[in-house]
Amino acid sequence: MKKTEPPRILSVAWVPRSPPAPVPGFVRILDQTLLPRKIAFIETTDPRRIWEAIRSLRVRGAPAIGVAAAMGTAAAAQNVRARSGAAIAGAVARVASYLATSRPTAVNLFWALERMRRTAAENAALSPPDLRRRLVEEALAIRDEDAAMCRAIGEHGLALLRNGCSVLTHCNAGALATAEFGTALAPVYAARQRGWKIHVYVDETRPLLQGARLTAWELSRAGVPVTLLCDNMAAVVMKKENVAAVLVGADRIAANGDTANKIGTYGLAILARAHRIPFYVLAPTSTFDFGSSNGDAIPIEYRSGEEVTHVLGKPVAPRGIRAYSPAFDVTPSELISAIVCEAGIARPPFNRSLAKIAAKAGPQHDG
Amino acid sequence: MKKTEPPRILSVAWVPRSPPAPVPGFVRILDQTLLPRKIAFIETTDPRRIWEAIRSLRVRGAPAIGVAAAMGTAAAAQNVRARSGAAIAGAVARVASYLATSRPTAVNLFWALERMRRTAAENAALSPPDLRRRLVEEALAIRDEDAAMCRAIGEHGLALLRNGCSVLTHCNAGALATAEFGTALAPVYAARQRGWKIHVYVDETRPLLQGARLTAWELSRAGVPVTLLCDNMAAVVMKKENVAAVLVGADRIAANGDTANKIGTYGLAILARAHRIPFYVLAPTSTFDFGSSNGDAIPIEYRSGEEVTHVLGKPVAPRGIRAYSPAFDVTPSELISAIVCEAGIARPPFNRSLAKIAAKAGPQHDG
Repeated sequence: MKKTEPPRILSVAWVPRSPPAPVPGFVRILDQTLLPRKIAFIETTDPRRIWEAIRSLRVRGAPAIGVAAAMGTAAAAQNVRARSGAAIAGAVARVASYLATSRPTAVNLFWALERMRRTAAENAALSPPDLRRRLVEEALAIRDEDAAMCRAIGEHGLALLRNGCSVLTHCNAGALATAEFGTALAPVYAARQRGWKIHVYVDETRPLLQGARLTAWELSRAGVPVTLLCDNMAAVVMKKENVAAVLVGADRIAANGDTANKIGTYGLAILARAHRIPFYVLAPTSTFDFGSSNGDAIPIEYRSGEEVTHVLGKPVAPRGIRAYSPAFDVTPSELISAIVCEAGIARPPFNRSLAKIAAKAGPQHDG
Repeated sequence: MKKTEPPRILSVAWVPRSPPAPVPGFVRILDQTLLPRKIAFIETTDPRRIWEAIRSLRVRGAPAIGVAAAMGTAAAAQNVRARSGAAIAGAVARVASYLATSRPTAVNLFWALERMRRTAAENAALSPPDLRRRLVEEALAIRDEDAAMCRAIGEHGLALLRNGCSVLTHCNAGALATAEFGTALAPVYAARQRGWKIHVYVDETRPLLQGARLTAWELSRAGVPVTLLCDNMAAVVMKKENVAAVLVGADRIAANGDTANKIGTYGLAILARAHRIPFYVLAPTSTFDFGSSNGDAIPIEYRSGEEVTHVLGKPVAPRGIRAYSPAFDVTPSELISAIVCEAGIARPPFNRSLAKIAAKAGPQHDG
């Protein structure tokens, strides 16, 4: 049995200028819009560049956005010329409010920013250098917790799979979307580490092709066999091939289990149900939003129609045609077989199981 | 009430060299692979160029393929240096066999070629010039019948719609796919002629984007309001918007109503059922294949994986990635609300209704 550690892909990293001291430092973001053709990074301490990177999907995936926003807040605190911790805390609150406007759906963004704001407020008595260091530590803690959550999700999710099976996934909820192993792909990486053979059908995921560009790329790099398909081929793959499970991530999960995730997830869940294939959502508890009683309360981001009328910047439709372009859809909890988080596996009815499992995950996830 | 004749788009035409005499002449094919960016034509009497045009989807859509193959056969007969009609009939049979290898799924291709072969065989006593003229007349008859079928399908289909409604369609089963108004889009054009307002949601239809490139193009040209969507957005459009019906064409319909059509149709039918939206297949009886008792008997064409890993020739996935690339899928008859053909509307159980309606359409459609 071959044990393989998947190659590390760091979608977001904190780079200290004189290691091992964490400060001063800057944020390094792998520009995912250029993958798989080009590996290039954005290195910055400027919140405007962090905002743009999140907005333009240079960094994407709910957990990775949270980490980028936290690190971006910590980086920005270094630029604040202030005589007191309180002044820095004020600046952190402003930066957090600003970064919160970058994207509306993924709740981890708000959760991570709120955690940074609170850390600053609670430590406002510290000297400016100490508070700056404290903020970087908090951002690194968010990253480390996310990595640990990925591993835990992988272990829990593994119980739902078998050696030799095929799974189907949508968009990218892998290493690129998180601080480490991903959420939906975490069980695949965990399986690979044990020497299991898991084959992954990857939806290309129009309009921005995160499946083709990112998931196929990171899985191949890790030596996981992949078959790419157009989104509209999922039904026939489910019918003709042996798909053991559909694994997807989440951008926000309401109290009743309704799940906002990349556009196309809802349709996939209907198709999985029609073919009696289990449909699993894998996401950290930081994705849970108990403030939204159900999916109707989740704000859905609509993006430019050009994302639909163009592919990689090239027009594929007549000029001026109107296009529909929601970035996410909501999958009703009835279509979800289980929700896997770092604390375990929640089963329907989710109204009860999600609250219970979040309590188990600890008080930091009530944001 | 404004009556509007949609602009004529001729995907395939016979061009006489000295009109009004139909012979000599050549075939003119609108190269659909270049749409919507460029309007360019292939003009030829060479069966190899016709074969290539069908194979490479320069002409596509089951009825249009049939017309192109018929005209191509007639054109080729002009090039045969023969002293007898019998020799020409032999050549026609060979050309027909050759063109039949261009694509496997659409049954109209075989139906049209068989009709040309039989016309030649039955008229082998004619002089070569008379037989050549007879063959062109037969190809033109196939075209004219197809145009008439489109109009009839439009009229029958109109009974299923209402002024002001929205419909959703997949791929291109419009003017470009036929000799005139299309099949799935025929009721939309018929509605437009009566001054009705019909709004069409158009699936972009990966991998080759016939929805974005062709359907959005021809409907906009005709003044029909269109909203383009990625295939994976169909579920949320069905849930949130008011979709009165899904209208699709067919490449082959088995005796029990199982329908082969562009990849993605099957999934769409499941989604329509889940949202209680009627799912209509619109196709001429030349698409019926009573030799296939059900969908399992329909051969499905698999195309190059490059169609999936590339968009308009540009790679969108890591190099060397394996891709799944069926050109068609089969929608089981249970998911089809009605099949609309030139002779009327067939309802389930289709085993009975299709045979009955085909008999009504006449003996020419038993091929």
